[in-house]
Amino acid sequence: MSIKNRREFLKLSALSSTFLGLSPATAYTKDNITEKLRALTEAKASSGTSVMGLKVAPIEQVKVAILGLGNRGTGHIRQMQAVYPKARITAICDIRAQQTDAAMAFLKEHNQKPEVFTDTEDAWKDMVKRDDIDLVLIATPWDLHVPMSVYAMQQGKHVALEVPAATSLDGCWALVNTAEETQRNCMMLENVCYGDEELWILNMVSQGVFGTLTYGEAAYIHNLADKLLNKDAYYQQWRGHQHLNNDGNLYPTHGLGPVAQYMDIGRGDSFAHLVSMSSIQEALHEESLTLEKDNVFYERDDFAHGDMNNSLIKTAKGRTILVQHDVVTPRPYSRINALAGTKAYHEGYPSRLSIKGEGHEWISEARYNEMRERYKHPIWNSLKSEIEKNGGHGGMDFLQTYRLIDCLNKGLPLDMDVYDGVNWSVVTPLSKVSVELGSVPVKFPDFTRGKWKEKRSYGIMTNI
Amino acid sequence: MSIKNRREFLKLSALSSTFLGLSPATAYTKDNITEKLRALTEAKASSGTSVMGLKVAPIEQVKVAILGLGNRGTGHIRQMQAVYPKARITAICDIRAQQTDAAMAFLKEHNQKPEVFTDTEDAWKDMVKRDDIDLVLIATPWDLHVPMSVYAMQQGKHVALEVPAATSLDGCWALVNTAEETQRNCMMLENVCYGDEELWILNMVSQGVFGTLTYGEAAYIHNLADKLLNKDAYYQQWRGHQHLNNDGNLYPTHGLGPVAQYMDIGRGDSFAHLVSMSSIQEALHEESLTLEKDNVFYERDDFAHGDMNNSLIKTAKGRTILVQHDVVTPRPYSRINALAGTKAYHEGYPSRLSIKGEGHEWISEARYNEMRERYKHPIWNSLKSEIEKNGGHGGMDFLQTYRLIDCLNKGLPLDMDVYDGVNWSVVTPLSKVSVELGSVPVKFPDFTRGKWKEKRSYGIMTNI
Repeated sequence: MSIKNRREFLKLSALSSTFLGLSPATAYTKDNITEKLRALTEAKASSGTSVMGLKVAPIEQVKVAILGLGNRGTGHIRQMQAVYPKARITAICDIRAQQTDAAMAFLKEHNQKPEVFTDTEDAWKDMVKRDDIDLVLIATPWDLHVPMSVYAMQQGKHVALEVPAATSLDGCWALVNTAEETQRNCMMLENVCYGDEELWILNMVSQGVFGTLTYGEAAYIHNLADKLLNKDAYYQQWRGHQHLNNDGNLYPTHGLGPVAQYMDIGRGDSFAHLVSMSSIQEALHEESLTLEKDNVFYERDDFAHGDMNNSLIKTAKGRTILVQHDVVTPRPYSRINALAGTKAYHEGYPSRLSIKGEGHEWISEARYNEMRERYKHPIWNSLKSEIEKNGGHGGMDFLQTYRLIDCLNKGLPLDMDVYDGVNWSVVTPLSKVSVELGSVPVKFPDFTRGKWKEKRSYGIMTNI
Repeated sequence: MSIKNRREFLKLSALSSTFLGLSPATAYTKDNITEKLRALTEAKASSGTSVMGLKVAPIEQVKVAILGLGNRGTGHIRQMQAVYPKARITAICDIRAQQTDAAMAFLKEHNQKPEVFTDTEDAWKDMVKRDDIDLVLIATPWDLHVPMSVYAMQQGKHVALEVPAATSLDGCWALVNTAEETQRNCMMLENVCYGDEELWILNMVSQGVFGTLTYGEAAYIHNLADKLLNKDAYYQQWRGHQHLNNDGNLYPTHGLGPVAQYMDIGRGDSFAHLVSMSSIQEALHEESLTLEKDNVFYERDDFAHGDMNNSLIKTAKGRTILVQHDVVTPRPYSRINALAGTKAYHEGYPSRLSIKGEGHEWISEARYNEMRERYKHPIWNSLKSEIEKNGGHGGMDFLQTYRLIDCLNKGLPLDMDVYDGVNWSVVTPLSKVSVELGSVPVKFPDFTRGKWKEKRSYGIMTNI
């Protein structure tokens, strides 16, 4: 960063805290504002080359190691086994032996005997080093995603990692640069991109049903108030600690991934900047009053994380996206999944559609069903029985696993690349900075180094 | 504004346009940024005293002049006649004689013969000067609200004006200061505050059903794309010109008024600052291609107004409110009307409720109906037959007129004061500035000069 820009940052801070009368959290000092914003705006040089559209040699049977066997990892064991013999699980790892035991019991029923790694902090490294692994699937707590992915790619393995890909800017760049330097795949497992509704909308967008896209809404609204502080729900209560220490949108990708795909983000358009605003925190404080006294969160009112976070993203083409995060308010689950164009509008929860020229209300159930049938993504028809049999969040988990392995079998580029994963995940650190500085606009780094301007087709729309 | 702050403004401009890489519209120069932001932050001195809680002597029969007889004014004629003899229409005015003729035809059927003012630009002034008027009700195009209201108060008349109260900061201050100097009522006719659903929620909030409030959502989503550019829908196509010349939230109050009431804005909490972001404009451009060639909007692609505007408001107590504006996308009408607390959540369109401890879904229809009955605002029961008979947006228009006149009859403070009207309306000019400068945060002026900190009860909750 130039001296001039460094000075501009200090002015930004001064503006937020003095002129605008806002109160940025005291964790910011002049020095670390400069450091944080430098990281926001500067691309981190890589000695590798772009992995956009990366193709690797076909792998007839993909040898998979699964790392982290909590809720998500346990699901991945089942989905990966469901695509056998396209893939074979050769190793599993969790620091908790009871988790690896449970997975082994399931796999033995299917005559599989992967190597097991457990008990020690570094057991996962011993696994990742092995030669009988093509792909490491990572489903550990958020802050472990980056170091594990980086290490796995450095060991020559492809990586599929759970959401969010990274929670920091440094982490995003580490994933991008390591993928570029090692020429390995690093796909974030944004399963929602494989949903029946989401692929139906993507298909309608690609066929012009929405006209010109102007706006979308994405959310992760999921009432987890009781789980977040519970001693048994997450390993060492890691997710409650996230709320203790961070304010912003902690979990943007489930809602944002599909909306980004509708809008060709990274494939012709790009996130330009965002602003973010959080409400007061109150729900977890009230929840904390109901806990046992030996719970670390008992009677706490110092949760950094506001109950509702709203972030507004502007794209290079001038479209906008609202991204919401609320996991503590007593309200039903929603990812909103709204998309506005000049010719149609969709909103989820429940899914409904309005079309220009067909009245000023939602289209009728019959008309909706007709549109649903006409634009249903073909893969949801061709794999119908397998999707129904294997399920996983209504089938999206199975379909994701199927596509990941099928593309590796055939030597095709994966549906989502490392740039998608970090573009969607970086909303977390950017929103944290915006919130802390009083909702100032912050730019997105360009992880693609300008290559987002190249219009690309989606694998899921072309290579099926 | 001090020299120091003036410099800060210039830095803000520099930041937005150079460092952050955003592109504020060229309409801003260094000079007018300073001028605009000065107006945002400084209170405008008034020689009067606060009209918060203003009481005037009871008026046994309120003599009413109605100014502007378009869609809304015509409705007001009917609602005002419905409360006769509590009020009597003594004069009407519209520049179009066919509008006054139609109103007269209706009023003659009810044996009313008000004075008629029409044809000339200044006819309204002749009306407002008359002695046989207590209250002037103003339903003219937006930009006329302020000058007409100010003149009417200066002539000693109380004012009820249509939404938005004002579209500029200067206009907001003119209303406040004139009301304070003349000690007249100036109530913005935010009819939605009298809705059955809205008063039900306000009643639940006041009785603690929502716990601690954290967040709300408000909107004006109304597909007017065909009307905005039509030659016959609005006098001299004034509303299309608003979209040609302004970007931001042009019509915030229908959604925001009720949410502001839930949150005690002006009565214990206050809007602190906002950020605003607009999408590209596209829908009106496409609409313009369908027009006749002699329409001033034919084949235009220079509409300043983005199709969707999102604004995020933070309150002094740290609550947040999302305010949306979209009147061009082909989607159903909605004001969202969402409210989140630690114990319950409501969302409208259609109205549904979730309650902490009653599962993770919307409560059942039976349970909803039970809540609806238990917390229904009593005035919707006591005036049931009159509301049903007179209607007006489901009854809210009648109820608003009834309350306005009833309070004047009894010498009670009006339900909404001039501070409410400008607090809700000022989102328009503030959002325009935020949008133009790349979504920077802008502070709300404190129209109450600190008196918002005094907890006050709502007239509609106490004086019925």
